[in-house]
Amino acid sequence: MAAPIGFGIMGCADIARKLCRAIGLAHNATVVAVSSRSADKARRFIADNGLPENTRVHGSYEALLEDPAVDAVYVPLPTSLHVHWAIAAAGKGKHVLLEKPPALNAAELDRILEACEINGVQIMDGTMWMHHPRTAKMRELLSDPNLFGQVKRTNSIFSFNGGSDFLKNDIRVKPDLDGLGALGDAGWYCIRSILWANDYDLPRTAIAFPNPVKNEAGVVLSCDASLHWEDGRVATFHCSFLAHLTMDLTVIGSKGTLKLNDFIVPFEEKSAHFTFASDSWFDDLVTAWARLPKKHVVSTDLPQEALMVSEFSSLVAAIKESGAKPDCKWPTISRKTQVVVDAVKTSLDSGSKPVQIVF
Amino acid sequence: MAAPIGFGIMGCADIARKLCRAIGLAHNATVVAVSSRSADKARRFIADNGLPENTRVHGSYEALLEDPAVDAVYVPLPTSLHVHWAIAAAGKGKHVLLEKPPALNAAELDRILEACEINGVQIMDGTMWMHHPRTAKMRELLSDPNLFGQVKRTNSIFSFNGGSDFLKNDIRVKPDLDGLGALGDAGWYCIRSILWANDYDLPRTAIAFPNPVKNEAGVVLSCDASLHWEDGRVATFHCSFLAHLTMDLTVIGSKGTLKLNDFIVPFEEKSAHFTFASDSWFDDLVTAWARLPKKHVVSTDLPQEALMVSEFSSLVAAIKESGAKPDCKWPTISRKTQVVVDAVKTSLDSGSKPVQIVF
Repeated sequence: MAAPIGFGIMGCADIARKLCRAIGLAHNATVVAVSSRSADKARRFIADNGLPENTRVHGSYEALLEDPAVDAVYVPLPTSLHVHWAIAAAGKGKHVLLEKPPALNAAELDRILEACEINGVQIMDGTMWMHHPRTAKMRELLSDPNLFGQVKRTNSIFSFNGGSDFLKNDIRVKPDLDGLGALGDAGWYCIRSILWANDYDLPRTAIAFPNPVKNEAGVVLSCDASLHWEDGRVATFHCSFLAHLTMDLTVIGSKGTLKLNDFIVPFEEKSAHFTFASDSWFDDLVTAWARLPKKHVVSTDLPQEALMVSEFSSLVAAIKESGAKPDCKWPTISRKTQVVVDAVKTSLDSGSKPVQIVF
Repeated sequence: MAAPIGFGIMGCADIARKLCRAIGLAHNATVVAVSSRSADKARRFIADNGLPENTRVHGSYEALLEDPAVDAVYVPLPTSLHVHWAIAAAGKGKHVLLEKPPALNAAELDRILEACEINGVQIMDGTMWMHHPRTAKMRELLSDPNLFGQVKRTNSIFSFNGGSDFLKNDIRVKPDLDGLGALGDAGWYCIRSILWANDYDLPRTAIAFPNPVKNEAGVVLSCDASLHWEDGRVATFHCSFLAHLTMDLTVIGSKGTLKLNDFIVPFEEKSAHFTFASDSWFDDLVTAWARLPKKHVVSTDLPQEALMVSEFSSLVAAIKESGAKPDCKWPTISRKTQVVVDAVKTSLDSGSKPVQIVF
C-alpha cells in the first residue's frame, strides 16, 4: 500500500481544526506539517489538535512550501491571500486543497488554475458536502427521468446570525480579507448547490435583488439573487450573516421534489437524510395528500470532510504514484461556481441589472 | 342554540364537493340549497354528495338568491364571474363565502366589498389553511421575540403539475374564466402566506421575475416574484402549474426558522406538523448541529375547511341573531392579498419593472 499523502496545513484558522481531524480520519492522508506566521502558534495548534509531536513546525508559509515531506497543502487563509499562496504552492509542486471561495473572482481563480495546470498539481476547493454519500444518492434520484423529470425550480438558502462579535471582527466581513462577504461565504454554497441540482448546466443570467445589506465598509452581509436559464428554469438563493441558521435546498422537477434542510453541514455526522417526493397528488376531495414525500437516510462511516480529503488524496496519489494527470472535474466545478459568484456580484454592484454568465 | 346557518351552493364545481362536506361537518352550518345552470346538475350534485333529499334545487343562480332559506352562499364559480354574483348575492342580503382569488383585481374586489358593506353582509375568501389550528400555533411562535426575533426572509412555493388535460381544459388556464392563471390560483396562497408571516405588513415593492411561462392565450402557467419591505425584509414566491406538487413555506427570523411543506393542504387531515428551530448552531468543530429544528404536531377534530365554514358561520350568526356588524378582519386580509397580486401582475406585464404596492 502506498504511503499516505502528506499534508501541510497553511495557517491555523478555526476551520483548520476541522480539516486537521478530517485528514487524520482519511485512510490515505496524514498531517505532516503545520505552518503559521508564528512558529509558536503552529506548535500550539499541533498540541491542541492532538497531532504527533514529530509534526513539523514552520514559522512561515514559505518554509512549509520548501518542506519535501509535504505533498499537498490545505489553505484556510482569508480569500484575498489565496491567489498568492495557491500559486506559490503550485510553483513548488504542492497539490492544493483550497478553502472556499477559492478566489475573489474568476480572473484570480484562473491564475490559480493555470499555475496548477502548468505544475501538474491537483486542485480542489473545500466544499465538503459534495463528498457526502447523501449527495450521490440524491443525484441518482434527480437523474431518474421517471421519478424526477426535468428540473424546473431550485431554491437554496444559507443564513446564519453571526452576532455582534462576528459582524465586527470576523475576517468574512473585512473588505481586505474576504471582500465578497456573505456572497463568497454562504452564497458560495447556495450557488454550488444550484449548479449541482442543474447538473452544472450554467444559467444564462444572474439578477441580484435590490438593496442588499452591506456593512459600513461596503461588504455584503445579506443578499439574494435569481438565476435564469434559456429553457425557463429558474433558481433563487438567499445568503446572509443576519438571519437564523438555515440551510435549505429544494429542487423541484416536473415529476418530483427533493428537499433537505442541512445540505452544507448535516444535522448529525454519521447519518443524514433528505426527502424525496414523486408523483404526489391529493385524495379525491383534496383534503389530504396521496403519495407523501419519503424520507431517505444515508449513513456514512467517515464525515464528509474526511471523504473530501480522501477523494483529493486519491487524485494526488494517482499523480504521485502512477504519473496520472490532475483531474479536471473539480476545478471546472470551482470555476463555474466562481463565474456565477462574479455575475451576481456585478449585478449587485450595478443596482440589480441582469448580468450574462459567461464561462 | 341558534339554528345553523343555511348555505346555498352556487355552482357545482369540483371544489364545491369539498366545501359541501365541510359545511356538513361544521356544527353551526348546513347546506339548504344547491344551484347550477341546470337543475339536473344540481340534483346530481345533491345525490352524489349525500345531501338530504329535501335540499332545495335551483336551476339558476338568480333563483338561489331569491330563496329565503339561504343565509349565505358559497361561490366556487370561475373568478371572472365573482364580481357579478358576489354583488348580486350581497344585494339580496346573502352572506358570501367566496372562493379564491376573490376577484381578478383589487378594483373588482372593492366593488364586491362595497356591496357587502352597504348590505351589511359578511364576506370571507376561501383560503382554508388560515383556519387550521396549526396556523394559530405557528403564529404564536413567530410572535415570540425571544424564540423567533424579527422576520428577515420568507419563501413560499406552490406548484403542481397539472398535466396535459388540465393545461388544455381547466378553467384556471382560460383567459375569460380565470385570467390570472397560476398567479391567481397557486400564487394567491403564496402571497397570503407571505403576508401572514409578515403579520400583514404590506411590502413596499413587487418585482416579477422575467420570462414567466404563459400559454398561447397569454395566461400565466408559472411565475415568480420577489417582495421588498422598506426595512430590508425580502420574500420570494414561486407558483406554477408545471412543476411537481410542492407546498413550502419557510420563514426565517433573526433568531428562529419556521418551516412546513404542506401549508395549503396538510399531508393528513387530522394531524399536521411543522418544524421550528430557535437559536440553532453547530458543535465545536462544525461537524454537526446543536439545537436541531423541532417537529411540532397539531391535531384537529375538524378539517381546516370545516373550521373555515364554522368561523364564517359564527360571524354570520352574530349578525343575524345579535345585529353585530360584519367583521372586517377577513375582507381586509383578502384585499391586501389582492393588492399584492395586482402589483405582481403589473410587474409581470411590464417586463419585471418594480411596482409599488399601494393599499
